Amino acid sequence: MTVTVHSPATLSNLGCGFDVLGMALSQPYDIIRLTRTAQPGLVIRHLDDYDLPTDPARNVAGVALLALLAAVPETVGFEVEITKGIRPGSGIGSSSASAAGAVVGANALLNNRFNKLELVEFAMAGEALASGARHADNLAPAIFGGFTLVRALLPKLDIVALLPPPLWVAVVHPQITVRTADARAVLPATVPLALAVRQWANVGGLVAGLLTHDFELIGRALEDYIVEPARAALIPGLAEARARALAAGALGGGISGSGPSLFMLNADEATAHAVAAALGSVFQELGIDFNLHVGPVAAEGARVVEG
Amino acid sequence: MTVTVHSPATLSNLGCGFDVLGMALSQPYDIIRLTRTAQPGLVIRHLDDYDLPTDPARNVAGVALLALLAAVPETVGFEVEITKGIRPGSGIGSSSASAAGAVVGANALLNNRFNKLELVEFAMAGEALASGARHADNLAPAIFGGFTLVRALLPKLDIVALLPPPLWVAVVHPQITVRTADARAVLPATVPLALAVRQWANVGGLVAGLLTHDFELIGRALEDYIVEPARAALIPGLAEARARALAAGALGGGISGSGPSLFMLNADEATAHAVAAALGSVFQELGIDFNLHVGPVAAEGARVVEG
Repeated sequence: MTVTVHSPATLSNLGCGFDVLGMALSQPYDIIRLTRTAQPGLVIRHLDDYDLPTDPARNVAGVALLALLAAVPETVGFEVEITKGIRPGSGIGSSSASAAGAVVGANALLNNRFNKLELVEFAMAGEALASGARHADNLAPAIFGGFTLVRALLPKLDIVALLPPPLWVAVVHPQITVRTADARAVLPATVPLALAVRQWANVGGLVAGLLTHDFELIGRALEDYIVEPARAALIPGLAEARARALAAGALGGGISGSGPSLFMLNADEATAHAVAAALGSVFQELGIDFNLHVGPVAAEGARVVEG
Repeated sequence: MTVTVHSPATLSNLGCGFDVLGMALSQPYDIIRLTRTAQPGLVIRHLDDYDLPTDPARNVAGVALLALLAAVPETVGFEVEITKGIRPGSGIGSSSASAAGAVVGANALLNNRFNKLELVEFAMAGEALASGARHADNLAPAIFGGFTLVRALLPKLDIVALLPPPLWVAVVHPQITVRTADARAVLPATVPLALAVRQWANVGGLVAGLLTHDFELIGRALEDYIVEPARAALIPGLAEARARALAAGALGGGISGSGPSLFMLNADEATAHAVAAALGSVFQELGIDFNLHVGPVAAEGARVVEG
């Protein structure tokens, strides 16, 4: 038995929603092909050029599958072929996509015995390998699709899936390296209460805007008073990119994950393309190579497309 | 021309939503009777026993009306009779109710020329008199009704009205005094970023729960990690009141405003009455007099009932 899964790139740290709000992109995505085997264990191959480890204990998809297999009583194994469409280190959930796609595919080969929340739990083992911390802010949208709020990790994982409004996303991935450790190091340990209040007012506003399809409110509420100001210096061109994107009609946006990718949300496809061009123009002038991605919010997360 | 307005009590600092989330109660309420006069100026009378000032410049309704009149070109004045149904100092928006009811009534007598956001702006002058700060967290629900999010005060007042789910509220007002200055003094100046993140995850969850009528989520998300722990010592019986309310079936709740009133949200009327009894039992045992209020969320804010 074999299945093929498409597993989407995702935005995390969405605007004001550091560590809690994310969303699924319709592209790029990883393609993961899993075959169920009678003999136990995992065999992982990469059909891409990123030179990622294929030892299951050192591969994010492998670690996620090992966590899943530990919850399966019968003897079973998987052969896994991964074709990454999402560049590692881009800040749009590359490792999450591999982990999410692997567990979604395995679940399909096991008669869908696990629910989405359980699949996120398994995949978090993979995220812990990639980032050193168990977190779900990319995995939640990678598995649930749409927009997601990770309300709590403890004492119990609590994910709120928000029915997505028909927004279009423009993403620019400038080919610079932002080390996650650097992005973490610039974060303040504490924040003034008054600023935290303004931030959670925006989180509430953003969730309300998403659920009521109030695009103007979404734009106003995306603003991040705490994390983006601390990280702005790590991404050359950020302020200019935002200014040109807003001038081109974007509702708002910011850094995805810990960067270097930037995203902008838009009311329609034509605006999203104009905004992508505006984002690209900044990095072209800076002499920094970049990739652009334009597409609607993905209503679905990782899904079986064949098999 | 005369109108009579009912202006509701309101909860502010709703759970995790310190300074931003509030809601309107169906009771208690103030009754405010306004008569438009051809001669300019205000005459204010109180038909209650709270010995509140009637000098317009020292009365919250008076100051709110003076702010409104400053935006009216023609010569006009008001005679105002206020019957307070909401005890001053209870923490359920007593001053806001008077200010909100006064401007809503005046607006009716001026052919409703101002919108709700403008009325909140006028009434904020009254709040500034009462508390020393311009804030809208009680005024927003007092004028818009239902649940409200004050997303921003500056550069422009931004209020998000959330269509209210059919919740029932139980409020206990123990007859103790919590000075606003004391309630402010115990607040931390800064909060750890990790705790702020947990708080804004709850704010997002609470807004999502309210908009999607997910009562379980509302209950989980109400929890306040920052402000209530700091203020708990100011209100004897708080922990026990919460425990008994939850045991009686409440979804969750906390301190209203800066106290001393406590509120609990509930899925239905019968539960709200049981929860009110549970709340009352704690203060009875402590030998503290108390008032109870039980009612549905008020879908409307201050409104003209006659005239």
